Amino acid sequence: MRSVITGTGSYIPSIIKKNSDFLNSIFLNEDGSPFGNENVEIIEKFKAITGIEERRYADDDQDSSDLAYLASKKAIEDARIDAEELDYIILAHNFGDVKSNSVQSDVLPSLASRVKYKLGIKNPSCVAYDILFGCPGWIQGVIQAEAYIKSGIAQKCLVIGTETLSRVVDPFDRDSMIFADGAGACIIEAKETEKQGILSHAAQTDALEECYYLYFGESFNKEKNRDVRYIKMLGRKIYEYGLNHVPLAMKTALDKSGIAISEVKKVFIHQANEKMDEAIIKRFYRLYKTKVPKNVMPMCIHKLGNSSVATVPTLLDMVKNGEIENHEINKGDVIIFASVGAGMNINAVVYKY
Amino acid sequence: MRSVITGTGSYIPSIIKKNSDFLNSIFLNEDGSPFGNENVEIIEKFKAITGIEERRYADDDQDSSDLAYLASKKAIEDARIDAEELDYIILAHNFGDVKSNSVQSDVLPSLASRVKYKLGIKNPSCVAYDILFGCPGWIQGVIQAEAYIKSGIAQKCLVIGTETLSRVVDPFDRDSMIFADGAGACIIEAKETEKQGILSHAAQTDALEECYYLYFGESFNKEKNRDVRYIKMLGRKIYEYGLNHVPLAMKTALDKSGIAISEVKKVFIHQANEKMDEAIIKRFYRLYKTKVPKNVMPMCIHKLGNSSVATVPTLLDMVKNGEIENHEINKGDVIIFASVGAGMNINAVVYKY
Repeated sequence: MRSVITGTGSYIPSIIKKNSDFLNSIFLNEDGSPFGNENVEIIEKFKAITGIEERRYADDDQDSSDLAYLASKKAIEDARIDAEELDYIILAHNFGDVKSNSVQSDVLPSLASRVKYKLGIKNPSCVAYDILFGCPGWIQGVIQAEAYIKSGIAQKCLVIGTETLSRVVDPFDRDSMIFADGAGACIIEAKETEKQGILSHAAQTDALEECYYLYFGESFNKEKNRDVRYIKMLGRKIYEYGLNHVPLAMKTALDKSGIAISEVKKVFIHQANEKMDEAIIKRFYRLYKTKVPKNVMPMCIHKLGNSSVATVPTLLDMVKNGEIENHEINKGDVIIFASVGAGMNINAVVYKY
Repeated sequence: MRSVITGTGSYIPSIIKKNSDFLNSIFLNEDGSPFGNENVEIIEKFKAITGIEERRYADDDQDSSDLAYLASKKAIEDARIDAEELDYIILAHNFGDVKSNSVQSDVLPSLASRVKYKLGIKNPSCVAYDILFGCPGWIQGVIQAEAYIKSGIAQKCLVIGTETLSRVVDPFDRDSMIFADGAGACIIEAKETEKQGILSHAAQTDALEECYYLYFGESFNKEKNRDVRYIKMLGRKIYEYGLNHVPLAMKTALDKSGIAISEVKKVFIHQANEKMDEAIIKRFYRLYKTKVPKNVMPMCIHKLGNSSVATVPTLLDMVKNGEIENHEINKGDVIIFASVGAGMNINAVVYKY
């Protein structure tokens, strides 16, 4: 019995926010002092490190659960199942539905319930809940689906990652340029096969000093309401943490699967920062004393930015649909999903397509 | 292999808020009009239905994750395990850390990560995440622990329910008197035994019109900021929903376990409303054409109110510690946990002690 991905879907919001749209931003240091450099320079350096040229924002009348619904609908159609057959809806997010120009998160009811409502699913046995696990939330949802399938609790699961980070960024913080909105989803089914499906996984939480590398903090603009908080990160610390821990987690998962490194066809890494992802993949292959193969790591960060839990399922859906140049997945390919984010959390899944 | 509860813990906040503390409240109807009746009368009727005489609120300097930490510490001590041995920390809540006098939820990082941080757990393989599943969140966490144990993913899990509902109530809404703060936790371990542990479970989500029976809505006082929202409920609808669906879910779980109704020693129902719980237990036994046995349903709502995800684990901990008159659990006793709440979600677990 294996947990097999039978359908994928993603929703890419329509508002394109280009790097040039930040030319008139007022960027400050954490202490509120002016950043100093010209915005042109700040943006150029930002692009060189993160790879981000533009990112997507949701329309004002769309909330995170709306994006989730749109991605889920596509995944259900792609899997050619009846939504009523779903045993679980597992939805990963970190901020809930944050209405445009609002500071309050709304998670009552859970976003998974809202998606079930929007899909019009009547079956009461389709259990819907949310998980919070930082950016690795969607992959963790996949691991949870695997646990339900392996223990005989579920046969068909919808796993969604959705986020509207544009609603929780501090415009006075340069890091606001990183974050984006989006949603991705997949259907995972129990199949009597040994030929495909989830082969292994690894997951970890580092919550000593790492616990607050990503946190909810005040605006860099000290004149703003001190009660309103925004997504904040210690970028340098996260970069080092990711580099030191993600390759090892990927190795743990791959070694558990018994698959040779040479058989790995694609690695889908959370789209947080291009330079970090490149360094992670390099170090991962170095653990096996091999060079990084060509075209092993598809990227969508350039045009989509970092949409947290949504990046990995969106990237998978795009590659599957031939939307990322020089990248495709074929039956039998071994692929790896990996992510790192707030918690700090890391996970990896080895999957045979 | 069974999932066995080896330790429990709870934290009951120190601030006692009595019904009489609401005598000077200004209660309004949903449309903002005065409620009409005298507060004395409102409170008397409220007590007659819900059973609530007083409830507990957390200190101003305590957040939901602090309560969770305090309950977890006790559960770990009670189980006599080293916290470093934990494979999972599963934390159920619905509103995150809401600082006193603040309207924003803080869930970055997740509350489970914060608990891991406070416990000082170094082991990176102890994976910490939050789930949102309305009031039945803690029981759902127990079901997730069972899935990890059954699928060989985990051996030891800490499952926590924590909430500070006092921070999200609308003081102009009579329903604000229902809600309370608190935290409960348990340790669940994989044991090679058939003599005790989780025997079966049932879970469901009804998200058609029921989806918004509990929701995040504006204050009944129309002069208050329309952007700030509070926990709101359609009490009558929830009462009917609970009555119609909870007994059936409990029966589904019990019938799956193969245990006879006569063997059930205790039923721990989410402490939402005394009259509702009494009606649920009556209807549950009626499904088996039997009368409700004496002392089968321990209650703590009178003194603690409704602390959402925290009620069931707190009640279990109190009965275990002999803190509820006429109630005890002995080795071999079959007990049922059941809950209903936002989503709308229902679940039940049959457990042999």
